[in-house]
Amino acid sequence: MTSTRSTPAPAEELETVLDNARAASGELESARPGELAGLLRGVADALEGATEELVPLAQRESGLPEGRLRGELVRTTFQLRLFGDVVEEGSHLGATLDSPASDWPTGARPDMRRVSLPLGPVLVFAASNFPFAFSVAGGDTASALAAGCPVVVKAHPGHPELSRRTAELVTTALREAGAPEGTFALIEGTESGRAAVLDGRIKAGAFTGSNSGGRALFDLACSRADPIPFYAEMGSVNPAFVTPEAAEQRGGEIARGYLDSYTLGVGQFCTKPGLLFVPQQALREFEETLVPEVRQRNAAPMLSSGIENAFRESLNSLREHSAVRELVTGGRSEEGVTPTLLSTTAEELLAHSEELMGECFGPVSLLVGYSDTDQLLEAAAAFSGELTATVQGVEDEDVVESLFGVLRSRAGRLVWNGWPTGVSVSYAMQHGGPYPATTAPTHTSVGTAAVERFLRPVSFQNAPGAVLPEALRDDNPLGIPRRVDGKPHSA
Amino acid sequence: MTSTRSTPAPAEELETVLDNARAASGELESARPGELAGLLRGVADALEGATEELVPLAQRESGLPEGRLRGELVRTTFQLRLFGDVVEEGSHLGATLDSPASDWPTGARPDMRRVSLPLGPVLVFAASNFPFAFSVAGGDTASALAAGCPVVVKAHPGHPELSRRTAELVTTALREAGAPEGTFALIEGTESGRAAVLDGRIKAGAFTGSNSGGRALFDLACSRADPIPFYAEMGSVNPAFVTPEAAEQRGGEIARGYLDSYTLGVGQFCTKPGLLFVPQQALREFEETLVPEVRQRNAAPMLSSGIENAFRESLNSLREHSAVRELVTGGRSEEGVTPTLLSTTAEELLAHSEELMGECFGPVSLLVGYSDTDQLLEAAAAFSGELTATVQGVEDEDVVESLFGVLRSRAGRLVWNGWPTGVSVSYAMQHGGPYPATTAPTHTSVGTAAVERFLRPVSFQNAPGAVLPEALRDDNPLGIPRRVDGKPHSA
Repeated sequence: MTSTRSTPAPAEELETVLDNARAASGELESARPGELAGLLRGVADALEGATEELVPLAQRESGLPEGRLRGELVRTTFQLRLFGDVVEEGSHLGATLDSPASDWPTGARPDMRRVSLPLGPVLVFAASNFPFAFSVAGGDTASALAAGCPVVVKAHPGHPELSRRTAELVTTALREAGAPEGTFALIEGTESGRAAVLDGRIKAGAFTGSNSGGRALFDLACSRADPIPFYAEMGSVNPAFVTPEAAEQRGGEIARGYLDSYTLGVGQFCTKPGLLFVPQQALREFEETLVPEVRQRNAAPMLSSGIENAFRESLNSLREHSAVRELVTGGRSEEGVTPTLLSTTAEELLAHSEELMGECFGPVSLLVGYSDTDQLLEAAAAFSGELTATVQGVEDEDVVESLFGVLRSRAGRLVWNGWPTGVSVSYAMQHGGPYPATTAPTHTSVGTAAVERFLRPVSFQNAPGAVLPEALRDDNPLGIPRRVDGKPHSA
Repeated sequence: MTSTRSTPAPAEELETVLDNARAASGELESARPGELAGLLRGVADALEGATEELVPLAQRESGLPEGRLRGELVRTTFQLRLFGDVVEEGSHLGATLDSPASDWPTGARPDMRRVSLPLGPVLVFAASNFPFAFSVAGGDTASALAAGCPVVVKAHPGHPELSRRTAELVTTALREAGAPEGTFALIEGTESGRAAVLDGRIKAGAFTGSNSGGRALFDLACSRADPIPFYAEMGSVNPAFVTPEAAEQRGGEIARGYLDSYTLGVGQFCTKPGLLFVPQQALREFEETLVPEVRQRNAAPMLSSGIENAFRESLNSLREHSAVRELVTGGRSEEGVTPTLLSTTAEELLAHSEELMGECFGPVSLLVGYSDTDQLLEAAAAFSGELTATVQGVEDEDVVESLFGVLRSRAGRLVWNGWPTGVSVSYAMQHGGPYPATTAPTHTSVGTAAVERFLRPVSFQNAPGAVLPEALRDDNPLGIPRRVDGKPHSA
């Protein structure tokens, strides 16, 4: 259970981790914003300083290329620092003050002040496909720490050495930045993860990974005597729709952008476009552009043999489906796998949605020919919960507005004339969506709003200044934006 | 399933209700803030105009006194109008705009804009104890409509005629204010409620009532193939703590305030103080003040015979507990029930927490003598999820800060030198708390923030103005507060 252990930890060590997390919880709850921001920045500095050690370790365990991993580490440290800024800016606390009002229509209104406090220890399940940005010190960890919650990370078995080394660096950086012991710990093994999600000391969970894994953990979290919020970001098909005019005006460019997006990271992105809808009359042209280009792609290794096996299994059931034509059959060499390209019609897709509209995590995508824009809209309406939906269109084209109208209630992020892979870490990012994209449609797991998942509001009625959190005191000592008597007040 | 039907509706009618709600969903999603506010105000006006009809109906079915019901109806119409103001002010949409930034550290940042959209049809389970404010047109309905969600209310069987008449008024008012058909419907019967919570057309649920009822529905919502957020506001013991100095300085006043609070509404408030901790040395004085006053209280009817039977059952198991002394035994007459007062020690309470620390919904409360402030803090730490916790203390008294420190991670609202009954509808109100007070610790069911439960964020990446919701357009046509490049911008 320590960060240097290589075998699953015994139950007593999990006990210690959880006890320490609980103990740290009270101390972190009273940490000042500057202190919390200091923790986040300390972790960022430590990871950045260890780039030359961490990147080769990540390469060895994930098989991902060096450039991608360097970029991902930059993203990870940037994200930690951005959450440091969020903490200091203070909007996320939702500080709200109502002054006493004797004439309030529901009876004399007392002095009421509301602020968000940390939920308590958060259990983070690391993902395999982003060994930095969605793993030990990734977005869930950063946003939970920003909320003031201790974090227990369940390591992903796909990169155990990297996980342990990252955890060591995080632990040391937190200690040096003054964090209480128990602010962070790494645990390993499925059984430890299951035990932790069921444990009363854990107050929320976050997960990035497959639908089956996320749902199983969500079910455990809900089955507790005291259920906890469980934020699982799971699979997504991320349909992309090419309008008739876009296909005509720039079909070739769209085809190449699509190929780059669905094969990025060997297709192992939760935002990979798994389906591309193109007008039936343009399908042949798309196929002719794509087939030779797909064939030229180099083989690359998948993250692990487990993931490759799962990919192969779901790929085979797609390939063997009677409604699917195989345009390019991906191969397997010592260097890894090459991409596959499949094709079908919207009519067949709708008739076999159960089998054809699920996520296939890996380098494959399905071209779907649609007969007319009515069928395009019908197909768009068949999706229920997606992280993203993409429209390649032409402004002022008739179908565009209707298409957005259908898609906006079905996906968390709508992309116009771009591709869904590549999730920016910013204020306005939404990385989430209705089930099955996530178990929590009202939240995001990327972007600054991710911190909200780990906060709970508390109101103080007529309370004296001495017991109020600083965010609520008369003189606004933290200098944060607050809402006073219903009106926003900047600091 | 129509609002005038007196028997549980057949399944086909539920189908129609849910189909209509789904159909209304798309239209409401595009409603402008002024239109949504108009719906809320129309409903408020209609209910207010029917005061002389509704209050007697509520009296007859609930047994609650006229004055209380008139006040509750005022609260209900005020609440609807306040949510109208919330909708027009627009902060709840969380509109956030990031401009393109080519130098963004995670790679060129696209134009990204995030706004909250309605979740879709919401199923509201009405409560028995507030036939207006937490029933057909109560806080859950008002906040769901404010979010732009159609509402299906499962009527509480405790006031069927009032529910139907309220639903008629709501339906007519909504129609006259221009709402799409299907914006609102009433359903009746446990089976209809269960079927609706499991139905894919329902996108969120809200409930106010008992722990067993709330948990059962939460479990159903989580068991769906596509789980939905289910916001259950359930029972709470609402402990109140009298510090040594407060007991000395104003024990008599505190005792009387406590009595008024725990007997208010015949003890049928989810914020009723079920336990009052007093210093052991002051216990006798509290008892001497309270006992004659409790005995003088008049009998009053409980909401229904079902609730009275449940009360009697849990009361009996408290009274017969070996650790409990009975100070005043409540009676039963034609007029209803009189209050009960019980007493124990903190030591016994902690030793028998399972039996003694649960909610007993009705006119009873338990005085608890504590030996010293260490034991007081130990007892406070034994609670896990409460809607409220109350401290009667003296400023600068040593224990006060520690007590607030313990309680703030255990309750949604902390009351200082007041009583928890009486929940103001305002901006800073938090009516919620960790489980078992609610199933959703990150949310509130009263106050303007309640609208957040029914919204989901969506981001638009590089999208043209024509497909952007108005809240996100360049010229801010709604004139709402937005966050631009991380900085708050007032309208």
